[in-house]
Order: sequence, then C-alpha cells, then structure tokens
Amino acid sequence: MSDTTTHVRTNAELDAVMAAAAEAAPVLAATAPGERAKWLRAIADALDADASSLVPLAMRESHLLEPRLTGELVRTTFQLRLFAEVLERGAYLDATIDHADAAWGMGPRPDLRRVLRAIGPAAVYAASNFPFAFSVAGGDTAAAIAAGCPVVVKAHPAHPELSRAVAGRVTDALKASGAPDGSFALVEGLQTGKDLVLHPNVAVATFTGSLRGGRALFDLAASRPTPIPFYGELGSVNPVFVTQAAASARAQDIATGFVASMTLGVGQFCTKPGVLLVPRDAGLEPLVVEAVRASAGGEMLDDKIRNGFFDGLGGLAERDDVELLAGDPTRAEVPTPTVYATDAAALLAHPAELLEEHFGPAALLVRYDSAEQALDVARALEGQLTATVQGADDDEQAAGLVAVLADKAGRVLYNGWPTGVSVTYAQQHGGPYPATTAPHFTSVGTASIERFLRPVAYQDVPDASLPPALQEGNPWRLPRLVDGEPVAAPTA
Amino acid sequence: MSDTTTHVRTNAELDAVMAAAAEAAPVLAATAPGERAKWLRAIADALDADASSLVPLAMRESHLLEPRLTGELVRTTFQLRLFAEVLERGAYLDATIDHADAAWGMGPRPDLRRVLRAIGPAAVYAASNFPFAFSVAGGDTAAAIAAGCPVVVKAHPAHPELSRAVAGRVTDALKASGAPDGSFALVEGLQTGKDLVLHPNVAVATFTGSLRGGRALFDLAASRPTPIPFYGELGSVNPVFVTQAAASARAQDIATGFVASMTLGVGQFCTKPGVLLVPRDAGLEPLVVEAVRASAGGEMLDDKIRNGFFDGLGGLAERDDVELLAGDPTRAEVPTPTVYATDAAALLAHPAELLEEHFGPAALLVRYDSAEQALDVARALEGQLTATVQGADDDEQAAGLVAVLADKAGRVLYNGWPTGVSVTYAQQHGGPYPATTAPHFTSVGTASIERFLRPVAYQDVPDASLPPALQEGNPWRLPRLVDGEPVAAPTA
Repeated sequence: MSDTTTHVRTNAELDAVMAAAAEAAPVLAATAPGERAKWLRAIADALDADASSLVPLAMRESHLLEPRLTGELVRTTFQLRLFAEVLERGAYLDATIDHADAAWGMGPRPDLRRVLRAIGPAAVYAASNFPFAFSVAGGDTAAAIAAGCPVVVKAHPAHPELSRAVAGRVTDALKASGAPDGSFALVEGLQTGKDLVLHPNVAVATFTGSLRGGRALFDLAASRPTPIPFYGELGSVNPVFVTQAAASARAQDIATGFVASMTLGVGQFCTKPGVLLVPRDAGLEPLVVEAVRASAGGEMLDDKIRNGFFDGLGGLAERDDVELLAGDPTRAEVPTPTVYATDAAALLAHPAELLEEHFGPAALLVRYDSAEQALDVARALEGQLTATVQGADDDEQAAGLVAVLADKAGRVLYNGWPTGVSVTYAQQHGGPYPATTAPHFTSVGTASIERFLRPVAYQDVPDASLPPALQEGNPWRLPRLVDGEPVAAPTA
Repeated sequence: MSDTTTHVRTNAELDAVMAAAAEAAPVLAATAPGERAKWLRAIADALDADASSLVPLAMRESHLLEPRLTGELVRTTFQLRLFAEVLERGAYLDATIDHADAAWGMGPRPDLRRVLRAIGPAAVYAASNFPFAFSVAGGDTAAAIAAGCPVVVKAHPAHPELSRAVAGRVTDALKASGAPDGSFALVEGLQTGKDLVLHPNVAVATFTGSLRGGRALFDLAASRPTPIPFYGELGSVNPVFVTQAAASARAQDIATGFVASMTLGVGQFCTKPGVLLVPRDAGLEPLVVEAVRASAGGEMLDDKIRNGFFDGLGGLAERDDVELLAGDPTRAEVPTPTVYATDAAALLAHPAELLEEHFGPAALLVRYDSAEQALDVARALEGQLTATVQGADDDEQAAGLVAVLADKAGRVLYNGWPTGVSVTYAQQHGGPYPATTAPHFTSVGTASIERFLRPVAYQDVPDASLPPALQEGNPWRLPRLVDGEPVAAPTA
C-alpha cells in the first residue's frame, strides 16, 4: 500500500502537495468523464475489497459499531459508483448551445456555447462522525474527482490510521487506473488545515463539522487575497414538529421513532433531530420519557466531542426555563441519552440559546399551546439542514408547517426522521446559514458535483477547438439545451 | 409616477424598506412563475413607453450618446421579457423527482423531490456604466424578480435622477400588475449601501463595479453574523491574444477592431479589451497607433471615474518598462484614447502591476517573442470575464491558447471582440476572482437567475403539500428529471 501522500504536516510538504495538485489540475480538467468514471469505480472496488480490514480499523478509532460502519462503507462505495454513472450520463455538464442568430431580439447574437468545467484543486476537510462517507473517500472527494478536480483531503484527527489506510487505497487505485500524479493527497494537523485553505493553489474548499470550526475556515477563505468558494456544512438542530392530529393518532410511534433517530450513532449525526415540538398535554411527553429511558447510550467519537457534549448540556441545565425530562446529563465515559423540556414561549424569547446544537444523544422537547404558536417557532428558526413534520391525513396544521419550513431548511420531511440521508439525484443536504455557508449547494447527492464546477462560455470558437461537450456533432452524446430547447441525449 | 420608494437614506427608512421586503418574500416565493412573467413584461412595457423621456435623462447624467442608450434600453426590456419566457418554460426550477425505491443500491430510498425556490430579499448594487442594463431595472433586478425575490436596489450616484425615474416606473408597473407591496425599493447613499449588505433581512447581494468597492462589500457580506452570498463582478483586463498567423493574415482588421472595442462607450465597459498581446515585429503596432490616433474620446461617466482613469495612467507612465505608444494621458475633461506598450517578459515579471484594470479608453500592447511566451502570459493571468484569441484557419497556436484561457476566463472568444455581451441561454458573464467573487455564477444571460434560488428537497411529503413543480401530476407542465432520466415538458 502506498503511503506517499500521508503525514503531510509542514509548510514545505504542503507546498509540494499543492504544486503537484496545481500541475494535475488542467490535466484532470481535460480528461473525458468516462475516464474519471473508471477511477471512481477503481476506488470503490479497492475499498470494498478491503472492507474486512478497514471496518475493524474504523470501529477501533470511532467507537461506532460494526453494522453501522459496514453500512457506511456500502454507502461510500455506492456513492463513488453513482458518480461514475453521473459522468456517463453527462447531464451534469449542463451543455448549452445558442447558435448565431441575426434576428435575436436585442440585436444579432454570436454563436455561444457554455459548459461546466473543473474549478481547480479542492481542499476537502474530513468529518469525524462518518469515518467513511464524509471522510477521505467520502462524498466530497467522490464529487470533486468526478468533476475533474485534484483533491487534497485534510484528515480528521479522530481517525488518523483509518484516514491513512483509505488514502493509501485511493492513491493506489487512482494510479492503477491511470489518473495523473497529483490527483489526490492526504494532509494532517490543525495548522496544516489552516494553511491549506489559505494556500494560493486551492480553488475551492469543502467542510463538514462544527459551526465554530467551519466558521473559522470560512473566515480564512473569505480573507484571502483571492477569496475562494467555501462549502461548509456547519450545524443544525433539525426540528421536528408534531401536529395536534398526529399526536392524537400516532403518539407511541412518534415517541419511539424520535428517540431512535435522536440516539442513532450516539446522536452524532448532523441531521439528528435535536428539537421536538409537541402539543402541550397531548400525551406525548410520558411516552418520550419512557423511550429515552429504554434507549442505550454508547461511547462517543472522541474525548473532545464528549467534553463538548457535556459542556453544552451543562449550559442547558443551568437555565430556569428548562427542565430535565429524562436521562442523565452527568459527565461519564458513556453518555446517557437525555431530553430536556421547555415551553414554546421560552424558545421564542431565547431562540439563539435554546436552539444551539448539542452534538450527541440529547434533545429539547418544546411544548406549544396552539398551531399558531408552533408556526411562530417555525418562523423564528435559523437555517436548518432538515425540518420534519409529523402529521396526519388531511392535516391543515401540517400543510402550513411544510410551507413555512421550506423557507428555513434544505430538506423538509413528512412522517419520517431526518437521520439517514439517501444519496440520490433529488437529495438536498444543505440549507441557509448556519446549516451551511452556501445555500445554493448540496453536499450529498449527485448535485453535489456542482460545487466543483464553473461555467465557461465559448463565443464563435471553431468546432475543433471546442471541448467535445460543445462540438456540433455531440461526440459525447450528451443531453443539451439548444437554442433554449432541451434536446435529449442521442442514442447510440 | 410613484416616488414612495426613493430617497431612502436613513437607517430607520432602510429598516422600513427591509421589513416590507421580508414580509413580501414568502408571498413572492409562493407566486406562480407565470404570474411573475406578467410583472416582468409590465416593467418592460412601462420602460419602453417612456423611452423618449428616459433616454434623454440618461444622456444628461451619463454623458453617453443617444444610439448607445437607446440600444441599451432595448437590451434592458428584451432581458426582462426573456426572463418572462424563462419562467414560462420552467426548466430553471430544476425540478427533480426520485420515487421511493426499495432496491436502491445503498439501501431503500424514500420519495425525494427537489426544486429551486426564491432565496429571499435581494440587495442589488447598480453600476455606473450601464445606466439601464446594469442599473435599477437591469439584469440583476430582472433575474431576482423572476426568481421571486423582493429587490432593494442601491442606486448608483452617477445617475440619481434616472434611477428615481426608473424606480418609479418599476414600482408602478409592479403595483398595477398585482405584485405585493415590498417587492421593490430604491435606496441611495454610500452609508446606506454599507448598511444594506449588513442588514439582517438581506439574503443575497449582487454588485457590478470596481474591485475596490466590490471587495469592500464582499468583506462586509462575509463578516455578517449570518454571511450571505455576494455576487460581485469586479474587474477584468479582458486580454486579447493575436497569433502569428492572424497577425500575418488580418493585421489591419485586428488593429481597427481592437481600437473600436477599446474605445466603445469611452472604454467604460467591464469587457473592454485592456491588454493586446501581439507577436513582436509582426507589423501590428503601427496599425494600432494609426487606429488609436484616428479614434475619438468622449466625456466619461463622472468626475470620480475620470480622475481614477488618469491616476491609473499616471502609474503606468512612471514605469521604466512601459512606453507611451499612442494617444495622450494628459488629464483633460475629455480623455484621449491612449495605448501603452511593454514586453511580455516585463509583464511576466510584474503581472499584478501591469495587468491592473484601467477603466476608460486605454490599453496596454504587449509584444511577445514566441508562441510559448504568449502561452506563459496566458497561464500567468488572474481570473477574467473574457479572454479573446485572434487566430487564423488551422491555427495551432490559437487552439493552444483557447485551451489555456478556458482555465482563466468566464468567456473565451475567437475572432471577435469582448464588448457587447449578448443576453442568451449560453451566455456566461463571470469568471474566477477578481473577475467575480463567485465563479459558479453568471450575471448576464438566463442562467443568472440561479443566483437568487436555492434548492429545497421534500421527503415523503403528501402531494397536496408539495409545491406544484413537484406534484406527481406536473400541473405546471415542466421538464423534470425523474429517477435520473430527463423527462420533457408534457405538451398541452
């Protein structure tokens, strides 16, 4: 296994990595999508082939359980292969052709053709909580390589050995399948992470993690002499609104489903439902208490995350307007799932404090007194990755909530739970700040490739000098927009 | 004519404007695209109807000539109507449907549907150099209203009366065609401009203007507690590369075309070709000198811009590695078109200084000694709005330049001139920093609507609570992506 790309920590080493990435960038940008599809499948195959060694390593470093990590690796290699399919379909290139038109309404137009192309070297900051799917060979890496961008991953310190092992597989698979040197590298260390986002050769950065860490990197990216797009997925409390009708019809299911989602992976999901809005006195509370008491804790990802979790609960516990409903916030090696409770009026009075994210198995139950008050809470929300409505059939309250929550969240769920983010064409894992720093984009799903592409238009350029995607004969058989009309991909 | 939205300068007035915009935002976001198409056409009709009073007002305030301003107004109303068509076609919504699939590769997927929706109140900073097309009712306003975002325009101080007059037409047309109060407002003043980008109710900002002014606003946008996307189009020298073969074949045409483009509108275009790369001793220089001497100057947009122009030329004149080729850099009410000359080696030694934008009728001619040296200059460029190649048939040098310049510019032209930006589906008016602060986006063309939209996904939401764009029956007859396959818009 190659380890030439690991342990990069010094400035001189980072410069060498970034020089190689800059050299590789135009080469990658010019490769055919079908070529990069092979690379992605080679990476997926290499990871699948080594599942029996990678999963135990991930278990040791993350404290997550085997079924979860095996499933996460399936998701990770599925994602790599799905991007290979996206490349083969070609719609992601958004190829658009306007033929010259002397009768164009504002005056004669030239021949104009636009296509998306790789933006340049990408810095990918790995997350702690998905050691496969949001780490070294995770969604950001898959999307960036799919787009044709060299990738430099900043390893998360919570799983260093796994990061190096996966980086070795990726490096070897890329080399074996013909990707140029400089296509991929792994770097480590807090200071290297800061240097990376400031490095002049970096064209785009992606991040999944805490509000504090992500905002610090966002600020660095914006402070550069040449600012770069920074796609940070930072934080979300993923509120769940239970309507009056749903509480009457499905109280037990809702209580059980909520606690299962809240405690999944020891509550360490960015989509963990952290706030549950329930109609006061609708009978849900005792069922939630019961479900919380019946749920199991688990060891957290690392000491820093565990300490942050208990510090946050400490802040809640000190408040007069919050009471402990179930669980135990006592600092321990293995945290107990814990739910606090408050009133909607208190939440509306102190939204910033009460809607802080607690990364771990904890949530806040909020009692509301009327449908209108629940809507007021929805309107007071900051940007969220997800917002969920638990409703019933023909539920007017639910319909009103869906409409308001679409203004606040990247994904609105109905009668489901936000954990478990499917990787599909329509998925949107994003949302207004602080959910992310870039509300136009998603970090999960096929559309996440857009973060690594920028449009270029060609005006009156001879066919032979056009990229194949824009040549008149459509050699890549792409679906295109021609003179304003969608034209389907020609069949072979 | 309404003037209720003008002269907004104080904080309290801005708060009132922004409160109205925030109230209007969800109402606008929920309107049908066909409804907003009517508003856009009403604005276009109102401006066309008043051309005979608006054009003279624009002439008085901008010093631009009647044919140019009449043409610009045509472009402006064409643009408004083109966005109305975009709304009616509906492809801009990017409606994507993934039906639930128990056999999905990573595990069963829920029903997921994604659509773009309005991002919220938009702050639009008007430019000085296009008093119609990049000002109060210009492309940004058209795109934002098309998207369903309330618009607050910060007037450019170079044409205050025209700004108020156009704002009155827009306000009246919106009201008459049924748009809600708060859909549009005009604000004025430097401090108001700064307060606007910091206002908590603003969700997105667009700007066309100088690097300095744009970067200052970008920094403010990034510094907010809740950062917002800032789409600044800042600056570009729009280099033109003349190949050896083109210089041999078309020297006179190139010299004449270059000077015409450089002096168009007194050189006050963001796409003005500011740098001309020519093969040394290929005979182009004397023809450029002749064409410059034969060209006419003109009064600039305002005193500040004229002073900035002469200050910049003063910086060039002081350099040892630059010589005056033609024209006269003497400070005057009406500047003389002026060209300096230098060598490619000097440019490569001091790219930042020599590639500074000079807004006005001036350019730098750069002599290169070999095709490889010209490519080195291309590789040394910062981000550009445009880059142009003047080539010949079967021109290998030209093909090499096109490939490298696609990495640097938003638009690559062949045997054309960058001024005159057509408003089409494939247009890309953008580019890497400092051309813009957001390389993924364009500020001209139908794709510019994307800046005002963000995706929202709906998971397992009942059909009746879905936005019409995502309902199973496709009531808006949109083209959609269904289970990964493009499905054309159903015909009526």
